[in-house]
Amino acid sequence: MKLEKNTKILIVGVGLIGASYAQALTEKGFEVCGLDPNAENIDYCIQNSWLADGRSSIDGDFISQFDLIVFALYPHTLLEWIKENQKYIKSGALLTDTTGLKRCVVYDMQEVLREDLEFIGAHPMAGRESSGVKFADKNIFKGANYIVTPTPANTQEAIEACKQLGSILGFGNITTLTPEKHDQMIAFLSQLTHCIAVSLMTCRDNENLASFSGDSFRDLTRIAKINEKMWSELFTLNRDRLLEQMDLFINQFNKLRRYIAEGDRESMEKMMIESTHQRKIFDLGKDA
Amino acid sequence: MKLEKNTKILIVGVGLIGASYAQALTEKGFEVCGLDPNAENIDYCIQNSWLADGRSSIDGDFISQFDLIVFALYPHTLLEWIKENQKYIKSGALLTDTTGLKRCVVYDMQEVLREDLEFIGAHPMAGRESSGVKFADKNIFKGANYIVTPTPANTQEAIEACKQLGSILGFGNITTLTPEKHDQMIAFLSQLTHCIAVSLMTCRDNENLASFSGDSFRDLTRIAKINEKMWSELFTLNRDRLLEQMDLFINQFNKLRRYIAEGDRESMEKMMIESTHQRKIFDLGKDA
Repeated sequence: MKLEKNTKILIVGVGLIGASYAQALTEKGFEVCGLDPNAENIDYCIQNSWLADGRSSIDGDFISQFDLIVFALYPHTLLEWIKENQKYIKSGALLTDTTGLKRCVVYDMQEVLREDLEFIGAHPMAGRESSGVKFADKNIFKGANYIVTPTPANTQEAIEACKQLGSILGFGNITTLTPEKHDQMIAFLSQLTHCIAVSLMTCRDNENLASFSGDSFRDLTRIAKINEKMWSELFTLNRDRLLEQMDLFINQFNKLRRYIAEGDRESMEKMMIESTHQRKIFDLGKDA
Repeated sequence: MKLEKNTKILIVGVGLIGASYAQALTEKGFEVCGLDPNAENIDYCIQNSWLADGRSSIDGDFISQFDLIVFALYPHTLLEWIKENQKYIKSGALLTDTTGLKRCVVYDMQEVLREDLEFIGAHPMAGRESSGVKFADKNIFKGANYIVTPTPANTQEAIEACKQLGSILGFGNITTLTPEKHDQMIAFLSQLTHCIAVSLMTCRDNENLASFSGDSFRDLTRIAKINEKMWSELFTLNRDRLLEQMDLFINQFNKLRRYIAEGDRESMEKMMIESTHQRKIFDLGKDA
């Protein structure tokens, strides 16, 4: 399929990400509806004209209208939802998600799914410090990264449609990765960084820190305000990869600690030169 | 002393911080001159009207004019400078610095200083990713923290004058700490965060990271571009305190690693709730 103006889209789970999808897609001219057990979320989006219609409980006739369904749910609820409700979905519909991990979602989904439906995983790398529909904002996608995670079970057509979705949403950079490579990358880039921020923010009594800090502490702990339900689930579901990345970091941190303890300035400087170099490459990648 | 419009100010070391001082103080109506072995730094500041005059080599008559001298030098060069050149300084002058560590500077300075001069330590908590006079900008002080670090050898008058300097420069929050407490705080808030950023940026081969990262990795590694000469010196000079803070962090990080390895979601969530709470307090402190 290809996303056309008459493609009807359903967002399942209208929280921060789901509602931001709804806003972006509605403003691009699509007919977007929502499904969320919390009726206030649906009402809020309809009042803002981000959704054309919505339901707060399962309604087979309603669900059967849509060509594209986007799941913006916690990982563990996604599979249950499909098992119970896929019977309502229109034949030929394309399904995708917004989950921050892919191995634990993609294969199970593709395993249980009806043969006339297709699921393709995607990870919109956007978010905010605060969760919930009230913080929804289509601008969080601007220039951000969108990762499509196809498996051998996916058709080229679905991969292209999913990339097209990322592009319509306004993402700046759309790439594909296998679910395995995705989860390893995310363990490093996102989960490890949250582990660091949480550890740093809680490792001592913090008295009047704000009066004495420069930008660095603020930068490193911005993500220490964290949704504990979601992140403890993400950490648990990606445990193997996350532990690997945590160990890479600990080893490097301990190496630097040893140089400092030994007063080995030459080795410290080498590591800092490497770090400066790596960060410059990172900046170039972003601009490219 | 109190800073008046006729207080003549000398900046020794016209790099990023020194030149930003010069710019801010000149624009506030003070007569500011500079001393820097690099004549280009002096010329650049004079061309920008940030300095009224300057020298690139020691000139006793020149140095003897100033009521307030600000040293914006590497820690190890400051003491040498004073030993060799304090003979030129006007009796009654007040001396201060911008060094990022205080124990290693303040006591030695006060020890060798002539009795008719007074040195009071200060740490302007502002900087940029890039160093050098070309990046100077008085706006880096806006809203930032300025820490005065008096010892029992300091007069109340000097403490007030130093605070006044911070205020004139535009700092948002001016506090005092003992040199000991300062160095411990800085070990945590600034040195540890740089150790984390350098370790994170160098702990693995980074291929195409930018295409897959959200904001968190970018935030945590912004300070991974680092002046290796300065920071390896700062780490070495504050080794005892820095190692303590690194160990606090490692312990907490390892605790979180254990929770993840054991799938102990309850303990993970507790730590995240604490981290969210601490970071909210930090934000309040900043607004206050």
